[in-house]
Amino acid sequence: MFNLHERLAADTIQIKDLSLCRALLMKDARYPWIILVPRQNDLKELHQLAEDDGIQLWKEIRATSKLMETAFHCDKVNVGALGNMVPQLHIHIIVRTIGDAAWPGPVWGVGNAESYTENHQETILNTLKIGFENVL
Amino acid sequence: MFNLHERLAADTIQIKDLSLCRALLMKDARYPWIILVPRQNDLKELHQLAEDDGIQLWKEIRATSKLMETAFHCDKVNVGALGNMVPQLHIHIIVRTIGDAAWPGPVWGVGNAESYTENHQETILNTLKIGFENVL
Repeated sequence: MFNLHERLAADTIQIKDLSLCRALLMKDARYPWIILVPRQNDLKELHQLAEDDGIQLWKEIRATSKLMETAFHCDKVNVGALGNMVPQLHIHIIVRTIGDAAWPGPVWGVGNAESYTENHQETILNTLKIGFENVL
Repeated sequence: MFNLHERLAADTIQIKDLSLCRALLMKDARYPWIILVPRQNDLKELHQLAEDDGIQLWKEIRATSKLMETAFHCDKVNVGALGNMVPQLHIHIIVRTIGDAAWPGPVWGVGNAESYTENHQETILNTLKIGFENVL
């Protein structure tokens, strides 16, 4: 059974399960921010995935990146697999806009997350669920 | 003709051209740090690459990640495509070790680059050139 790291579980809301990854929304209203987690245990690095699963992850990363650019005002998509603090393999896909809370630096470790209002969260989750149905 | 962004050209040393990407070594001795740049002009986002080229980029990212983990003392590989400051699509692949200059945060924007000594630079370039021949 796939186990999501407790830190990822605490910081995110589940959007949906794609073919390979669990797609999560970060609880941070400062940026539309998705995390993709391949639903396999004990993965740490991108090159550890089997070749077919790696290709599927790549498809899901690219589709998510395109979806984010299309669905939101977006000057740049940031994609990153860091994992220095949470060892479970996970990929960040973040919409960046000029002048956002961390611009032009990376978002990680900058300031504090801002909560979504209930309405805003519902809207963004619906947008992303519909978006994923159209692209994957 | 492919044009490398002047900032990338200034901050790196060319390792070699892979099938798709120019592989560059960052002039920063604090971390083994490779940048892959697809040799196509006017690319900004990962999802803009044609599907075949995208798959090739993915192969080169995964092979570089594996090579870096194998060739160096490495606690975690960091992979990122940000591009907030340099718009030309480029992918960072960085060897992280516990206690390094930015650990456990991301490396971007932290402190100042440290120059390689001539001997160290030659050694690391040779290691990477041979490594790429074995994996790609």
